[in-house]
Amino acid sequence: MTQKLKGIIPPLLTPLTDDFNLDVLALHRLIEHLVQGGVHGVFILGTTGEATGLKYDVRQEIIKETCSAAKDRIPVMVGITDTSVGESLKLANFAKEHGAKAVVAAPPYYFNLGQQELSEYYEDLATCLPLPLYLYNMPGLTKVHIDANTAIKLSKNPNIIGLKDSSANTVYFQSLIHGIQREDFGLFVGPEEITAETVLMGGDGGVNGGANLFPRLYVELYQASLSRDFPRMVQLQKQVMEVARMLYNIGKYGSSYLKGLKGAASLLGLCNPYLAPPFKHFKEAEMETISKNLDTIKINMEKIGLSGNTEHYV
Amino acid sequence: MTQKLKGIIPPLLTPLTDDFNLDVLALHRLIEHLVQGGVHGVFILGTTGEATGLKYDVRQEIIKETCSAAKDRIPVMVGITDTSVGESLKLANFAKEHGAKAVVAAPPYYFNLGQQELSEYYEDLATCLPLPLYLYNMPGLTKVHIDANTAIKLSKNPNIIGLKDSSANTVYFQSLIHGIQREDFGLFVGPEEITAETVLMGGDGGVNGGANLFPRLYVELYQASLSRDFPRMVQLQKQVMEVARMLYNIGKYGSSYLKGLKGAASLLGLCNPYLAPPFKHFKEAEMETISKNLDTIKINMEKIGLSGNTEHYV
Amino acid sequence: MTQKLKGIIPPLLTPLTDDFNLDVLALHRLIEHLVQGGVHGVFILGTTGEATGLKYDVRQEIIKETCSAAKDRIPVMVGITDTSVGESLKLANFAKEHGAKAVVAAPPYYFNLGQQELSEYYEDLATCLPLPLYLYNMPGLTKVHIDANTAIKLSKNPNIIGLKDSSANTVYFQSLIHGIQREDFGLFVGPEEITAETVLMGGDGGVNGGANLFPRLYVELYQASLSRDFPRMVQLQKQVMEVARMLYNIGKYGSSYLKGLKGAASLLGLCNPYLAPPFKHFKEAEMETISKNLDTIKINMEKIGLSGNTEHYV
Amino acid sequence: MTQKLKGIIPPLLTPLTDDFNLDVLALHRLIEHLVQGGVHGVFILGTTGEATGLKYDVRQEIIKETCSAAKDRIPVMVGITDTSVGESLKLANFAKEHGAKAVVAAPPYYFNLGQQELSEYYEDLATCLPLPLYLYNMPGLTKVHIDANTAIKLSKNPNIIGLKDSSANTVYFQSLIHGIQREDFGLFVGPEEITAETVLMGGDGGVNGGANLFPRLYVELYQASLSRDFPRMVQLQKQVMEVARMLYNIGKYGSSYLKGLKGAASLLGLCNPYLAPPFKHFKEAEMETISKNLDTIKINMEKIGLSGNTEHYV
Repeated sequence: MTQKLKGIIPPLLTPLTDDFNLDVLALHRLIEHLVQGGVHGVFILGTTGEATGLKYDVRQEIIKETCSAAKDRIPVMVGITDTSVGESLKLANFAKEHGAKAVVAAPPYYFNLGQQELSEYYEDLATCLPLPLYLYNMPGLTKVHIDANTAIKLSKNPNIIGLKDSSANTVYFQSLIHGIQREDFGLFVGPEEITAETVLMGGDGGVNGGANLFPRLYVELYQASLSRDFPRMVQLQKQVMEVARMLYNIGKYGSSYLKGLKGAASLLGLCNPYLAPPFKHFKEAEMETISKNLDTIKINMEKIGLSGNTEHYV
Repeated sequence: MTQKLKGIIPPLLTPLTDDFNLDVLALHRLIEHLVQGGVHGVFILGTTGEATGLKYDVRQEIIKETCSAAKDRIPVMVGITDTSVGESLKLANFAKEHGAKAVVAAPPYYFNLGQQELSEYYEDLATCLPLPLYLYNMPGLTKVHIDANTAIKLSKNPNIIGLKDSSANTVYFQSLIHGIQREDFGLFVGPEEITAETVLMGGDGGVNGGANLFPRLYVELYQASLSRDFPRMVQLQKQVMEVARMLYNIGKYGSSYLKGLKGAASLLGLCNPYLAPPFKHFKEAEMETISKNLDTIKINMEKIGLSGNTEHYV
Repeated sequence: MTQKLKGIIPPLLTPLTDDFNLDVLALHRLIEHLVQGGVHGVFILGTTGEATGLKYDVRQEIIKETCSAAKDRIPVMVGITDTSVGESLKLANFAKEHGAKAVVAAPPYYFNLGQQELSEYYEDLATCLPLPLYLYNMPGLTKVHIDANTAIKLSKNPNIIGLKDSSANTVYFQSLIHGIQREDFGLFVGPEEITAETVLMGGDGGVNGGANLFPRLYVELYQASLSRDFPRMVQLQKQVMEVARMLYNIGKYGSSYLKGLKGAASLLGLCNPYLAPPFKHFKEAEMETISKNLDTIKINMEKIGLSGNTEHYV
Repeated sequence: MTQKLKGIIPPLLTPLTDDFNLDVLALHRLIEHLVQGGVHGVFILGTTGEATGLKYDVRQEIIKETCSAAKDRIPVMVGITDTSVGESLKLANFAKEHGAKAVVAAPPYYFNLGQQELSEYYEDLATCLPLPLYLYNMPGLTKVHIDANTAIKLSKNPNIIGLKDSSANTVYFQSLIHGIQREDFGLFVGPEEITAETVLMGGDGGVNGGANLFPRLYVELYQASLSRDFPRMVQLQKQVMEVARMLYNIGKYGSSYLKGLKGAASLLGLCNPYLAPPFKHFKEAEMETISKNLDTIKINMEKIGLSGNTEHYV
């Protein structure tokens, strides 16, 4: 990790078989798709990867297979978020062993922690880890927010090298950009809708779910934002917004993001639509909507010089 | 599980060594303390047991040792709450094997689930479990509330035999009492402050943390409530309120309950004060307060004919 | 206010004309209905009274007409909850002038207040008020919770004479019962589902919306609880639960309570169904359900010796 | 309102006397300060203006005096947010009479409204208003979020001409930018930390509290963002972040923003530090910190060619 990581780091979907084991072939295909799509790294076992819903042996298999598939072409970051620090460390050691470059940890998500407790938790964790750590702020799911002051304090720990923020709150993100005094500290956002604007303002990139489907779109958006190519950025941003609107809001509940993303991935031939419990994949009605929407998306992507197909990658 | 369980079921504290492994001797001592104190069962691997903070091998060891210590004198209920249904099932099978009587599961606590999703999750889980299931409503920590209508619907599943509610919302609890049409469905509350009133209104008992310290107090409160012995109930309720006020509110943060309870348990000679990460046990200043408060509590307990000492049990 | 108020204090529905002015005749009829039903007081301009949705001149008119209708037969308590302390004081002075016995104030509900800020707010308010003050804890709507420690501290102010809790959290209510050291401090609950149990445990009564419809039911429930007449209490509690289940949960949204209560009141001939904006009264479909449910309720009430009709009162 | 409003519209601080009446002279001085500072409009009776804490006659006086002071040099927008639609309409009519250009309304903030209820509320309100309406999304204080779909639907109403978003959630803001199909619909953000990035992405400006103090800073930031002058934008953004960090985070509680802003305004000679209840102005200790921080801010502002003094304006 001698050089700061930047760019588009898709939070990898976890391809599953219908008994919730890893679909190894699909995982390799998906990694190939992303590498060909130009992504700058891959983040496994995150929220989009449904990590918390998987058995631990499946989590280990994902680490092993992803590192093997990535073959040093792109760095692999491994989610080790857990309520048990012992299980986090086990995964981290396994990740180190198989060649991952960094680990990522959201706050332990059962108990409510005070900021002081959270800070001590991360300091202790960073001390024990065999790999550098990215903080992961995901308050909507963990309940625990990594306050700006806490993050700024933690950024002084050399083993902590970045933060991924999925709060969607860019006042918070601005506070980090301006409050953290370390050039080599990476600041990423989760929601793809705001990758462009945060990169314009000094952010380092996006950990964007949609990049599983259309990596080139997000990579080009990142590049256009970085080079302040506004005409191109506007085209691409519009397309990213369409993906979010047309794929992530089918059906009810917060799970529509995951179900829509995986449903679309299955229609694109990337993997099965199966989700790990507690969720179930979309039924026919929703899949039909997604299919129709994917057609629209593909047509619009071609209009801006991008392919919505995946065949040429895989 | 032929007969409905009722009464005081302490959520067992997990005695730990300073490297966060199980303190087996202390566990046996604690179980002996509870059996002698007259409790009606024991619930391991719950919130008070810090289950989510423990490694899985430690969780298994707790199941094995508790079942061995309880020796059929009291039924053992095992918490299997997990974000991964696969891990829940593994624990449940292990529990069955070692003689536990039932399992307890709060909603999977990472993702936000809709009520329909939650309902399907529990129906699927109940189908796969080797032991009867208690639902565990703990919205403050899981974010997901088991709505009254969902609970009432689930109560029709014969493999689901009860519910523990830690919401402290007795409008909700009344809705369950009046909405669930099954004589053999057990309804328990978590917070000890409301065991008396819910038993008066038809509840089946309390899963009360303080019963780790003073089992007899809670057992007598339960009995006085059940027999509507108001003069005695009032004495005991006042004492239970004093325990909560003087032990669970030292220090800041929501963790003060766990830290205070375990701190007090250590002063009573029941176990070490060590907490599993992400929490740390109280330092000297807080322990001094707890020690002084324990003295007051013991004096007041003796005034109502109860012993605050633990020696005679263990 | 020389004697502590106890019992059932209905939070008065506000009878409205279709242009959202006060239906004076209906107000007098409703008060007569309640007095005949044996209630111990009436609380106007609360949540059930839709106070925040009314113009200030309508609020004043309600004070005047209620005091006139009550004619010293029952004490009138006036809600003065407001985000502007100046407007609260104006209403309080008007209330004093017209013969009200006390005022009731929830926290100012726009800004988020810290407990210290809240405490100072109430101390200042109590100093300026011409009438004794009841605190009103309604965290679901005001966002601001009056913490137990804050309420206990405020209970030492002689101008503050009680608290109405609508949190439904009886751990909190128990903390107040045991923490407040003043015999003449009144502790009431809002939700009718828990009036019985809180009175059994030492509470002073209920500010129950359903008492607008069937005052006798709630008054008898209060009396049975107070005298620990369990067989009768169980009958009445069951009936109260039926009212809540069959009338307050029609339609979507949190507003179903208000819409259902007012819809039922209109079918009972007590007032029009009109609600003040931002709400609209139920349409035909929901009203039909309520009508059918009311029939069931009336039959069941008669079985326990109560009339579900209102004619004999008014 | 023939032309779409854009730019910096400060949410006016309300200068108060020590008995919470309007300090008319200070109001005129503050308006002069803003006009000289180049702002594009002024928004009175918003959150920063403490509208909900003021008596209604004071609110009317503010409308009258602001319109008189602005003398058609800048458009005046008037907050009419209220829980009573009747009171909102009264203020709106008063505003129209005195020459205001538009009104602004957050959702009614006592009851919890469903999106359908919210939508109908706004449609009804827009129909009755004598002036065009801006929606105001402020979920942290009103509890009610104007969902993107609701806002997009409401944007089709010709009497609704814009939205101010204070959620700080730019995923939401992007959804509005891309979902609303009306060129003349104004989209503003509240938090000054994100004015730059939202303007870069197509937003119309900022309703920024700090512009009360240093209008020129915010106006130049807006212009630099609009013209994509990145070197200048970066300088100004850094300065805006410093203002926020050094002035809005003194003391505890959410009120630190209001107390800090008004404390700083008083030190700059713009108005008294008095806040309307339920808040109290900062005491000496906090004011000293603010004073020192203001010195730093002034020095840094001069370094980028801006004056931190107010004398030349007033």
